[in-house]
Amino acid sequence: MNDEAPHLPPVLAERFAEIVGERYALRAAHEIAPHVSELRGLFPGRTELVLRPGSVEEVSRIMALASETGTPIVPQGGNTGLVGGQMPDRNGRQVVLSLSRLNRIREVDLASNTMTVEAGVILQHVQEEADAADRLFPLSLGSQGSCQIGGNLSSNAGGTGVLAYGNARDLCLGLEVVLPTGEVLDDLRKLTKDNTGYDLKDLFIGAEGTLGIITAAVLKLFPKPKGLEVAWLGIASPRDALTLFGQALEKAGSALTGFELCARVAVEFASRHVAGNIAPLAGEHDWYVLMEISSGRSPEDARALIEDVLGGGLEQGLIADAVIAENLAQAAAFWRLRETMSESQRPEGVSIKHDISVPVADIPAFIDRAGQAVLAAAPGARLVTFGHMGDGNLHYNISQPPGPPDEAFKARYREINDIVHDVVRSFGGSISAEHGIGQMKRDELVATAPPVATELMRRIRRAFDPAGIMNPGKLF
Amino acid sequence: MNDEAPHLPPVLAERFAEIVGERYALRAAHEIAPHVSELRGLFPGRTELVLRPGSVEEVSRIMALASETGTPIVPQGGNTGLVGGQMPDRNGRQVVLSLSRLNRIREVDLASNTMTVEAGVILQHVQEEADAADRLFPLSLGSQGSCQIGGNLSSNAGGTGVLAYGNARDLCLGLEVVLPTGEVLDDLRKLTKDNTGYDLKDLFIGAEGTLGIITAAVLKLFPKPKGLEVAWLGIASPRDALTLFGQALEKAGSALTGFELCARVAVEFASRHVAGNIAPLAGEHDWYVLMEISSGRSPEDARALIEDVLGGGLEQGLIADAVIAENLAQAAAFWRLRETMSESQRPEGVSIKHDISVPVADIPAFIDRAGQAVLAAAPGARLVTFGHMGDGNLHYNISQPPGPPDEAFKARYREINDIVHDVVRSFGGSISAEHGIGQMKRDELVATAPPVATELMRRIRRAFDPAGIMNPGKLF
Repeated sequence: MNDEAPHLPPVLAERFAEIVGERYALRAAHEIAPHVSELRGLFPGRTELVLRPGSVEEVSRIMALASETGTPIVPQGGNTGLVGGQMPDRNGRQVVLSLSRLNRIREVDLASNTMTVEAGVILQHVQEEADAADRLFPLSLGSQGSCQIGGNLSSNAGGTGVLAYGNARDLCLGLEVVLPTGEVLDDLRKLTKDNTGYDLKDLFIGAEGTLGIITAAVLKLFPKPKGLEVAWLGIASPRDALTLFGQALEKAGSALTGFELCARVAVEFASRHVAGNIAPLAGEHDWYVLMEISSGRSPEDARALIEDVLGGGLEQGLIADAVIAENLAQAAAFWRLRETMSESQRPEGVSIKHDISVPVADIPAFIDRAGQAVLAAAPGARLVTFGHMGDGNLHYNISQPPGPPDEAFKARYREINDIVHDVVRSFGGSISAEHGIGQMKRDELVATAPPVATELMRRIRRAFDPAGIMNPGKLF
Repeated sequence: MNDEAPHLPPVLAERFAEIVGERYALRAAHEIAPHVSELRGLFPGRTELVLRPGSVEEVSRIMALASETGTPIVPQGGNTGLVGGQMPDRNGRQVVLSLSRLNRIREVDLASNTMTVEAGVILQHVQEEADAADRLFPLSLGSQGSCQIGGNLSSNAGGTGVLAYGNARDLCLGLEVVLPTGEVLDDLRKLTKDNTGYDLKDLFIGAEGTLGIITAAVLKLFPKPKGLEVAWLGIASPRDALTLFGQALEKAGSALTGFELCARVAVEFASRHVAGNIAPLAGEHDWYVLMEISSGRSPEDARALIEDVLGGGLEQGLIADAVIAENLAQAAAFWRLRETMSESQRPEGVSIKHDISVPVADIPAFIDRAGQAVLAAAPGARLVTFGHMGDGNLHYNISQPPGPPDEAFKARYREINDIVHDVVRSFGGSISAEHGIGQMKRDELVATAPPVATELMRRIRRAFDPAGIMNPGKLF
């Protein structure tokens, strides 16, 4: 097969283009390019047409035409996904549907504490709009400056606010969805309670664009915290971190808004390779915890809470050393150190990454057992463990042994994945805690998930999309 | 058709009985009776066989046989549902499957803050087990002494803890489900983050037993509050109550664990007809609010919080009068006054009940508009409005005009329902906030829900249960 041959009939492309207008039907290679490659270059795709509809009605007409003609559609938000869910495949026949022009904030309802937004609104814009209304929208991720809320919902994004506020699913009350047929499901409810049939909303959330296209959502807003404290702690072991986590939860309850665990090497990499990062503590420790407390009452209250937790931890020897950020700038610097850990692995050579979760109680045992298994297979590899410990979610990343880029190590990606994921499964864990399945983990999901579950998912997909045109090749 | 003719072939009944053992296959009328009628006597059913399996494997074998023979199965928990979802129909061919013997607590995991329970465990038992482990399981309903957790999940139960902790769906991390074919879906995960495909859990929750039979669940546990304060407030209007609710949420955040609104007549009925109930305030007010604050820190903290909220409300004239419960017994008495409002309507004659939700911000406008519409149609009727205002959920109940039982009023049940539900729909609300659809609201759901939504639900149901044997006649 000639990979360069056009696969989308020009007449059909023309019909799609007419719906959005020529200006928003991208067909030139340089216009298409940003839509067919992503950050890590892992999922190169091809398309001959990127559509940028400007209204829900246009999305609906695109899907009706796609249904009529059996044209596969790949919905795309800010193109920040890490598993290739937003990429077309390589055959060139799939049409990319970008939601970026659906970027209106339709309503802020202060009394109901909701914001109704279109799918293409950038996450940071949602946060800023909430802030301007003296509210908090707590979804927070590294890519928040470019990811879009539709993609966040389609992938059920996690991030750093999950501990206290839940993931994207928990932050959404209602959806507007264009179905594969072009029909529009208007389910933009602001209701916290509604028991009228099956939970369609939560089916579309996390479906990675395989059941329909989310075009708008009602998001929950929260009171803005009045006090914030962030501390950086040196800790001897994940077990001490777990004990401390239990105490922090007991003392601070839902005011505990962050509890991140980081291995020493992760802090070393981030300090070494990212300009401006500084290790907050003078001495070195095997593990570090970033703890955040947000008080709904006052700055003094946040301070008292964090001092209570740290005081108890220091007294019991659970914390070896601790520093509380002196101001918001230093608090942001602590978070930046944590958030740049993934990118700081690059100068250290090849890395093999995992996004896993296990029950919180099993985090220490998981770290022990996975570490032993990985080092037995790859002596000298560096276990760059960090993540949202309070959610049981670790980015269990492994950097090659020190030295020049190690292609042999890279070739073992699947093998190392299997080793880590086998340990994950032995704890009843998840091989994708927050990034989703996309293309990256599709084969593994199918191979290892309970057949009963994947069969139900297949049936749901067929029931929603009998023609098989919604983001084919993703999930399963 | 002779309603008394046996419809379940005796040979088939024998095969079902063999699975559970003769002792747990109920065929005598007096043994069957408690399973074919419910509290309000609204949904009289008939069956020739009630099965009480003692293990998941027995449930699985029952469903396999039901699939093979096309026998309709009605799952039943504590038989406390208010919409007839747990009742067999009148033809006698449906077999009732009671989950009551699956009543083991399989595990309490303090470090992960989870409890794994079987479907037949009574809600109050779950609460007590959590309490004994120094944790809180916050689901709380009037029927908690007899309802079972499997039924709570199948109906996505609400109750009084939703404001701070969410409904049954939000309190569950994983499920074990026997599918219509008898296959077992083991999804008993303790994970707060898991993005590996469609959200099957939330589809089974609230499905009213139409997609499968929940046999076990992993429930979330929370730190036990250290301080509790309950206040009873006299308020001039729902609008003042809404303003006060916003301030309470702002000041107390997730420590605001209850905010119930009650109309004057609801308090009068409950004081008049339920022995032991006493109106907490000396004077009379058009509206009352029950406010509960739970502090994770200390009794003093809870006291300071509630005094702060009440002080502000009194100063601004939002609260006309207030009393804080002096001790736990008085707090329980305030709650009892609220919880007996529904039953206290009975001595006042015929009542027409609704379980609705609207966006919180629209509660005052809903009360205005619905009241005008109802009184225009039924002058003299008494609007016994009460409910979980903080969730936007009201039990909008209407008692007949004073006098002897009014059959003419009762005959207008549907008409009054339609009047109220039309107002609900004009606010984008729900006609079943927490009780579900069952048999009671099935026709109305089908007639008034967006056809796109009901069509998707039909497809899901067919995909899960192609033989149509799971709780037929419920939902749609």
